[in-house]
Parts: sequence; structure tokens; C-alpha cells
Amino acid sequence: MLQSKLFTKTRKEAPKDEVSKNAQLLIRAGYIHKEMAGVYSLLPLGLRVMNKINDIIRHEMNTIGGEEVFLTVLQDKNLWEKTDRWDDEKVDNWFKTKLKNNTELGLGFTHEEQLTALMKDYIRSWRDLPIYAYQIQTKFRNEIRAKSGIMRGREFLMKDLYSFSKDNESHAEFYEKAKQAYVNIFNRIGIGEKTYITHASGGVFSKYSHEFQTITSAGEDTIHICEKCHIAVNAEIKGETLACPICTNKDLRQEKSVEVGNIFNLGTRFSEALDLTYQDENGEKKVVVMGSYGIGPGRVMGTIVEVFADEVGIVWPEEIAPFKVHLILIGNDKADVKKYTDDLYQNFLDKHIEVLYDDRDVRPGEKFADSDLIGIPWRVVVSEKLIAEKMTELKNRKTGDVKKVNEKELLNLLVS
Amino acid sequence: MLQSKLFTKTRKEAPKDEVSKNAQLLIRAGYIHKEMAGVYSLLPLGLRVMNKINDIIRHEMNTIGGEEVFLTVLQDKNLWEKTDRWDDEKVDNWFKTKLKNNTELGLGFTHEEQLTALMKDYIRSWRDLPIYAYQIQTKFRNEIRAKSGIMRGREFLMKDLYSFSKDNESHAEFYEKAKQAYVNIFNRIGIGEKTYITHASGGVFSKYSHEFQTITSAGEDTIHICEKCHIAVNAEIKGETLACPICTNKDLRQEKSVEVGNIFNLGTRFSEALDLTYQDENGEKKVVVMGSYGIGPGRVMGTIVEVFADEVGIVWPEEIAPFKVHLILIGNDKADVKKYTDDLYQNFLDKHIEVLYDDRDVRPGEKFADSDLIGIPWRVVVSEKLIAEKMTELKNRKTGDVKKVNEKELLNLLVS
Repeated sequence: MLQSKLFTKTRKEAPKDEVSKNAQLLIRAGYIHKEMAGVYSLLPLGLRVMNKINDIIRHEMNTIGGEEVFLTVLQDKNLWEKTDRWDDEKVDNWFKTKLKNNTELGLGFTHEEQLTALMKDYIRSWRDLPIYAYQIQTKFRNEIRAKSGIMRGREFLMKDLYSFSKDNESHAEFYEKAKQAYVNIFNRIGIGEKTYITHASGGVFSKYSHEFQTITSAGEDTIHICEKCHIAVNAEIKGETLACPICTNKDLRQEKSVEVGNIFNLGTRFSEALDLTYQDENGEKKVVVMGSYGIGPGRVMGTIVEVFADEVGIVWPEEIAPFKVHLILIGNDKADVKKYTDDLYQNFLDKHIEVLYDDRDVRPGEKFADSDLIGIPWRVVVSEKLIAEKMTELKNRKTGDVKKVNEKELLNLLVS
Repeated sequence: MLQSKLFTKTRKEAPKDEVSKNAQLLIRAGYIHKEMAGVYSLLPLGLRVMNKINDIIRHEMNTIGGEEVFLTVLQDKNLWEKTDRWDDEKVDNWFKTKLKNNTELGLGFTHEEQLTALMKDYIRSWRDLPIYAYQIQTKFRNEIRAKSGIMRGREFLMKDLYSFSKDNESHAEFYEKAKQAYVNIFNRIGIGEKTYITHASGGVFSKYSHEFQTITSAGEDTIHICEKCHIAVNAEIKGETLACPICTNKDLRQEKSVEVGNIFNLGTRFSEALDLTYQDENGEKKVVVMGSYGIGPGRVMGTIVEVFADEVGIVWPEEIAPFKVHLILIGNDKADVKKYTDDLYQNFLDKHIEVLYDDRDVRPGEKFADSDLIGIPWRVVVSEKLIAEKMTELKNRKTGDVKKVNEKELLNLLVS
């Protein structure tokens, strides 16, 4: 798209009350807008990144048999009383509201209750199982403090998948598939190397749950890493000596980290409370076994900013960058240079290369600074001097490498 | 997709408390789930339809220069006090909630205030205008009654675009473009013929606003149609004799209808209250001129069900149907019939034809009844008898026309 048509502009300063690096950079570069602490709107560039993250997540969820739904924000109190999660003493981050007739409603902070109740319409027999349903929907959590930018919001997008299986064995089989799908997601999104499957407390139904923790100094968690097995243990697990659950190694490296995903064996906690049962092969009534599988796309986006940003701005991995190429025109006042760059822009579009074209009539220094801040993976500069040499200048945002290439080489490099 | 993998099933009866035809049919066919009055979740089939409607809307909004954003649900009371729309006496359908420190928040029922305030960061000069920003986001309206199914929800998706222009002339130019884009949308979605541009009260800044009203007996509005000009007047316009605003014809036909879209000249109502100004070409401070442009995709979906459904079920226009083809296998127990149908299914997929394949082991009568209820435009039946004749049976859901065609003819007909 033409940058002159993009309504956002970069800013030198983030709002004074914004203390997190991810939100500071995303606001300055025009990706998000801060409405209040922990509540951020997505602007055109931010929505592009979010959609790319969501599409990767969707693809991997569909691959393991996930069916996408879109549940509601408004929650029926009766359901949550059945699982004993309505009371503010039990769940301390509810946002609640009321109908005109004073009926209390909640704003969903998670969706186990609602989906379990919904499945009562569709699960009768063992033949109906398993079911894997997921959504990408806004969650609301009434956090007392919200100082981590889009890494911990009061209103935020969440992908949550819930599995419904006939027994523990069938559940365990899917649980492993989901774990692998999560590994795929974080690899594709570009934080695979820095993300560790982390053993955390498992609750009543299994010894461990599994978190996906990404190393960053901005994280609120602490994990203990076994480098050999590329896994970790969450420091929250108490009452046992910290050791690698695979190789029993006790020499673990401690790191600050952020939880970008988690998978959890829910057992029959919700299906029992809400009476979600089925008839098995022998006509006997059994309780459905459930699991939950969450990823916060906004938290992932914030984490990526924290992990990869440098002193001049954001650095996006290519798969989730808002555009692949940032095309910079130097010499708006020179008709032939403008024409050459317009044509190159069209060439990129024809080859389905996503490009942001900085056609604005501003100083080159401003264009370069904006480009560094916005963080698109490949910067292509066109100027009168470069055209005279039959060259363009290609810069890799991540490595900083700059080289001159002719147009044919440029297109070959960027199409692949 | 394989129907055996779809977790929803059809139902003979809708919930007893559901009085609207659209929700009854959509629930029975497995498109939506009723959480409470006016609050419906989208199930896999329903989400597919909604995404298709949204994609058509997006395409037309992008074509007229719209930039997509995603604003938040949670609203800052201070903004709404500035426009005098916070008080429950002034706006009677707020849902409100609170932070832990008792700060009151609203759940957005519309987004003029929030987006106008946001634009103060980006609009300084006449060079920054015009800006057209839109979103597809959930709205919350605390309706006292909610008996129209997904045509009037308490929680529902809305596409809302807001225009920011430097003067009335520039505003008027875009307003006409938006009007045409809306005509395109309703044509593409399949309700163009039944939808009338309707003159309604315009407020302070213009004589008329424009609604898009679709004729249906389920509608809550009444319009007066000039058939010659294919436009209408909303009965709400009082104090003047009802006449066609174009040809002044007074012989108008009265119909019940539902408002599927509206466009509105906001003038400086919000920009003045929130101090959204710019410097014009002469360095003078001017107030931005705004417009709003809404469509409820869920209301559109409900309207289409109301308008086209027949006594046996839903009838989707092809552009927004969840699938183009419903492939019905008769004879699950016959290996060669199953093999032939599996191959045909793969053939459809290879040709990028969206197909729901009823591979379930249930009676033919049940498959046919489900197919009628679900309302996919083309039903293709394969059976032992048809294979012997080297034929398949093709049925048009809308017209009821049935004919036998061989596989080559079938694929030719459905690819186009």
C-alpha cells in the first residue's frame, strides 16, 4: 500500500504513562493505540500483523482437526455458578454487567463453561467424539495492574481450543498432537528457538500442565531450562526439587520468560459440573474428558517486539510482518525517479509481494528512521544515483546488511 | 468438509423460547447457538457464512479507500461525557462495567467517540485528510426486549466506517461513493432487489440520512416505496407529506422492512465536542467533518434467512452460502459407491469448489431433509443406480429443479 494513504504516522514519544517497551514501540510506530491501561486498539499495521499471527494459528488448529466457532462475550451467571467460578472471591478478575432487568452477566475471561454447556446439544454417543472446537475471540480480565503493554491486557484476543474426548487415552493422544501443533506455531511465527515447553503444575487430573514460555527480560515468569532437552520447568512448581522431567538433570539455567501458550488436561472438572455425558459402546453413561489449549495472539505480538527489537525500532520475523518489503523513494520531485519507483511498486504487486511504498514527500532521513522503527524485513531504496548505476539498495532489517542489486536480482531474491 | 466430522447436527425443534424464524432455522440447522435472548454464538457453519458476508463488505470498503482497524469494546467514560452520551437518561442501551478501583467503563454500542479521539493523534493538517477508517467488531446494546433472533441482538457484529473530511463538499463526495458501495454489497450478498435506499431523518447536518431497508414481514420498520425510482421513505419521517424525494410521486407502496445498513452525515457533532481540528491551506483552524456508515453482518444473515427460507429450510444465495455444493452419498455400505463418491469429493476439492460431503451412515431421507434445512445452493446425489446410468443428480435448492448430469457436465456447471 501507499504510505501516503496510511492514516497513521510515527511518533517520537510514546504516552508518558506507558512503561512497557512493546507498547511504547508499537504506539510510536503506529501499530496500536492506547485507550487506557491494558486496553489497546489495533490500527491498520497492527491489524495486519495480528491477522497473520491468527492465520498461522488457524492453519495449525485446522490441521489437527479443530473446528472454528465464535462464542459470545456475554456470559450466563447460572453456568458459572455450577462450576463455582462466578463468585468474585473465587475468580478475582471478572468484569460484570447487568441487563435492564438487573440480571447479572459476566464478560468471558475464558470459555470452558459456555462451550461445555453448548456441547450438551451435540454430544450423545461415543460416535460423536472426539470434538475439537476453537475460536479467536476477545477475552476480558479485570487485572488490578496492567503494565505489560499488550503482553497482559484487560481486553485481548485469545485463541482457545477445547477438546472433548471419550476417555483419558483418547485425550492423551490429542494432547500430544496439540503440543506438536503449538511447537509448529511458535516456529512459524519466528520465536521457536526462544520458546520452551515448560512443565507447570497440572491440577487434579495430571501431574503437569504444559506452558510455552518465551525467554525475555520483560517476562513476569521465571523458568528453569534444561538446555540438553530444550524444555523447562516453571518455578511455580513447589514442593519438589527442580529437575528436568526428562533427563533428571538438576543443573538448570534460570531465565525470565513470558507464557505465550498453555495446554491443560481439564479431566472431568467441567463436564461433571455441567453434566456433559455420553453413551459408550456398551450403552453405559460416561463423563466426557476435556482439555484446553490457549494462545494469546496479542501477547505473542508483544513478545516478538520485546525479543527482537533493537535500539532503533521493531524487527518483525518475515512470516508475520505487516509487509515483506518497505520501498523507499528518494527524490519525489524528480519525475523519472518517481516513475521508476511507481513501476517497481507495481512489479512487486504483480508478483504478489506485499509492499509498503513510502511515496511521501518528506526528507530521506525521516523515511529511513520511520522504516527502522516500523521494522519491515526488507528495505528497498530507489534514488537518482542508484538508477544511474542501474541498481537498487536492499537492506535486511534484522542483520543490517546492505547491498546493491539490480532489479532482476531484487525480484528474484524477494519472490523466493 | 466431511459432514461426519462436523460437530453440529440438525434438530427437529428450536428452543421453545425462540420466537423468530431466522433464529429458529439457524439453530435447527446448526449455524448458531442461543446463549440467552439476543445473544447467539456462531457455530462452524454460521461462522463460514458470517466470514463470507464480512469479506464482501471488506472488499467494498477497501475499494473506496477504507482502512481497517479493530477498536476496543471497553470505553472510557470521559470521552462519552464530552459528547453527552454517557448518561443512561441520554442513551438507554448501555452495558456498563467497572475496573477493580471502581472506575466506570462502557461496552461500546458504537464507536464515534473513541475513533474521533484517536484521530487527534493523526490529524493535524488538511494534508492528512480525508481518512476513512472502518472495523468489523462486536457491539453491545442493552435492549429491553430481544425477540428478533440475530436481526436485533444484545451482542452482535457490526461493520462501522467513519469518514473524516476537510469540508462538506469533500464529505458529500465520499458519502455518494459509500452509498454506491452499499448498493454493491447488497447486490453481491443477494438481497439487492429487495433492498431500497430509504430516506430517513437526517439530524442537524442534513435533511436526510440514508437507510438500506430490505423488505420482509419480519421487519420492525415500515417504509413507503416509489417503485419507479426504486427508493423509499421511512415512515418515521414526520411532519411532511410522504412523497418520493426524487420524482415527488405520492402514490407509494407501504411495506414492512428491516434496516440492514445506514449512512449518516455526522457533520461536526463529534469533532467539535472532542476538539478534532486541522489547519487548512491558509493556516486557519477548521473542524473536521464526519460521516458514519454501518452494516450489521449478523442482521444481514438473519434477513437473508427470513427473505429466502421456504417451508423446508434455509436457502442461501451462492455468494454467502457456507458451501457451494452439498454432496450426498446414498449407499455407505457399498464399497464401489463410496469409492466413487470419495473420488468425486476429491475432484471438487481439486477444482476449489467448496463442498460439504454427507458421508454419514444415516438414512437417505434424513440426508435429504438435512440438506434442505441447511440450504446449500447445489445438491449432488450419488447412488448405485445413478452410477449404473453414469449419472449424478443435481438439484438447485432455490428453484427445486432436479436433473441428471454426467460427471463432466456436473463439474463444468459447478466450476463456472
